[in-house]
Amino acid sequence: MKNVRVELGSRSYSVMIGPNLLARSAKLLDREEFSADPVVITNRTVMRLHGGGFLQALRRRWPRPAVILIGDGERYKDLATVRRIYDSMFRTGADRRSWIIAFGGGVVGDIAGFAAATFMRGIPFVGLPTTLLAQVDSSVGGKVGVNVRQGKNLVGAFHQPSSVLSDVLTLRTLAPRELASGLYEVIKCGAIRSEPLLDYLESRLEQVVACRPAALEKVVFEATSIKAGVVSSDELEDDLRMILNYGHTIGHGLEAATDYRRFKHGEAVAWGMIAALGFGRELGLLDDRSAARLVHLIHRVAPLPSLRGISLAHVRTAIQHDKKFRRGSVRMVFLPHLGEAEVRSDVDSRHLDLFLSRFLANPGARPTEV
Amino acid sequence: MKNVRVELGSRSYSVMIGPNLLARSAKLLDREEFSADPVVITNRTVMRLHGGGFLQALRRRWPRPAVILIGDGERYKDLATVRRIYDSMFRTGADRRSWIIAFGGGVVGDIAGFAAATFMRGIPFVGLPTTLLAQVDSSVGGKVGVNVRQGKNLVGAFHQPSSVLSDVLTLRTLAPRELASGLYEVIKCGAIRSEPLLDYLESRLEQVVACRPAALEKVVFEATSIKAGVVSSDELEDDLRMILNYGHTIGHGLEAATDYRRFKHGEAVAWGMIAALGFGRELGLLDDRSAARLVHLIHRVAPLPSLRGISLAHVRTAIQHDKKFRRGSVRMVFLPHLGEAEVRSDVDSRHLDLFLSRFLANPGARPTEV
Repeated sequence: MKNVRVELGSRSYSVMIGPNLLARSAKLLDREEFSADPVVITNRTVMRLHGGGFLQALRRRWPRPAVILIGDGERYKDLATVRRIYDSMFRTGADRRSWIIAFGGGVVGDIAGFAAATFMRGIPFVGLPTTLLAQVDSSVGGKVGVNVRQGKNLVGAFHQPSSVLSDVLTLRTLAPRELASGLYEVIKCGAIRSEPLLDYLESRLEQVVACRPAALEKVVFEATSIKAGVVSSDELEDDLRMILNYGHTIGHGLEAATDYRRFKHGEAVAWGMIAALGFGRELGLLDDRSAARLVHLIHRVAPLPSLRGISLAHVRTAIQHDKKFRRGSVRMVFLPHLGEAEVRSDVDSRHLDLFLSRFLANPGARPTEV
Repeated sequence: MKNVRVELGSRSYSVMIGPNLLARSAKLLDREEFSADPVVITNRTVMRLHGGGFLQALRRRWPRPAVILIGDGERYKDLATVRRIYDSMFRTGADRRSWIIAFGGGVVGDIAGFAAATFMRGIPFVGLPTTLLAQVDSSVGGKVGVNVRQGKNLVGAFHQPSSVLSDVLTLRTLAPRELASGLYEVIKCGAIRSEPLLDYLESRLEQVVACRPAALEKVVFEATSIKAGVVSSDELEDDLRMILNYGHTIGHGLEAATDYRRFKHGEAVAWGMIAALGFGRELGLLDDRSAARLVHLIHRVAPLPSLRGISLAHVRTAIQHDKKFRRGSVRMVFLPHLGEAEVRSDVDSRHLDLFLSRFLANPGARPTEV
């Protein structure tokens, strides 16, 4: 088992990463802060796949955990679900000494974290992320919240977990596209902060995709360490934290232009990174060889859904509504070198437009040679 | 104008107290953090009484403040109203650079503060409390939230304001019972922390009740300083902050037992203090003369609604559901001396029961002589 410490003063916490953590959860969470019975928030899919063993392990220490099931999917990440969670919590006698376990992927983590942030003005919560994307991204950093009809994640809070257990064996039940979607975020972490992580992925991609425990533990640990480092220096996302959005400006645009239906989040980020690399080259950033290397690695993970038929106007509107758009120019992250990121606030939106119209028409063939 | 600093590290802020602050708000809030147009959350009553001059003043600096009106009264302090606030904010183009002004009493402050805590994961807000209770109590300390059908303030957050302007001239339009309700909380502040404040109230009560600006400024300043001192040492209410609940254990019980209809909050706290004094004397705390002095001051403010017909069983149930009830014994605040408070966690609930049954039957005549 590996351990990543997220340093945030009095709200610091540990992310434990390894195989079989669910079975050891009673021991790993045996702390004063968690003396009352926990409230487990999860969904039917996660319960079916991993719930039996986990609850059995939990009951060794807490005889009567409450279990609250929410719908499986992004469309349940709303205020109505939060309200149902409050109601279930009151019904089961939860009070300010209660604590929440977010047991599932990103949707469960975001919504359970928001319930924890607001139930009786805030109670502790523990993340037990069961997808690669949640383990390397959303479970660390304290961003919690829900979607409203005006957009995604527009209501929420910063509420840091008390602890995170990333059991890499849960990743074995992921659909291949889900696993790939998380891997693109791992690649992003390497791209912005660690060339050695890219080297590792290049040499061991097959082991990772085959869910070998040691390989999963390695990539989850490295990506979590990178995210924890950034979050520790910049909790509230004013500046440094922006580099975690590499690939996300255009990625979000692609997701929104396709009504969040065509791409998994990571897949849109993958296309966003490829586009940002191409656009960065037009700005004279990153040498051709490094850019081609990263594009090649991204394409090796899995085939990406095509960009066919996506309207430039829709992508542009989404980018302009994005928080990264400020007063006519666009704020975007680029790579001056592999493993290094730079935020530029002065990206000319007409230049980006021109680039995107070419890119959408011809995003480049999958390269066979670097 | 007087200034109270609430020391909370990077979230420290100032409470400005004095007459005519509304008219000077553009100047007092001219800060980098408030560069976008504000969103003013208020209700029709406050708008009618104080809105004209305030908006005029505000427009000198921010040409297009948004104004969102919510219902006037505790029954509007719910999640449905928060949702309508989000919708109005999106409609007027609010984004993460926006900031909220909570312009009104406690309900407006709690709900606007909660909207600020959760809109786009938190934006700044400024309190402009227009009732005495809000100025001396709810506007300082960062407790924000709403009621749910299971109880009051059970969903919320800790979100500190960026600034508070307590314009004492707004208190002149308060109904006498509203003013009195706030004064009982001022008396509470003196009782737990400052005998000189009690001396001042004893000698100048008439000036305060007549809303003389200098007298109001003095009592709001002293009470705010006391609350700020407690909050600065103990933001999240684990221990010290509990002393602010003097009179509240029994007070909440009386409110709940009468469905929050018979008493204003401060009136219930006034009875709660009188009861706690009587009970404290049975425990050998506080000398008779000091207790009588405090009871006399409370009764001088205004007549209190009677306790007639209140069922002991209902009060007891409410006290036991209260957060101050822990494992069979009750946690209550007492005064060993005037100006000093002490939290006792081991109050025998049967003894409290016996005392309350006698107290409800005979709460004591208004004393005419100390």
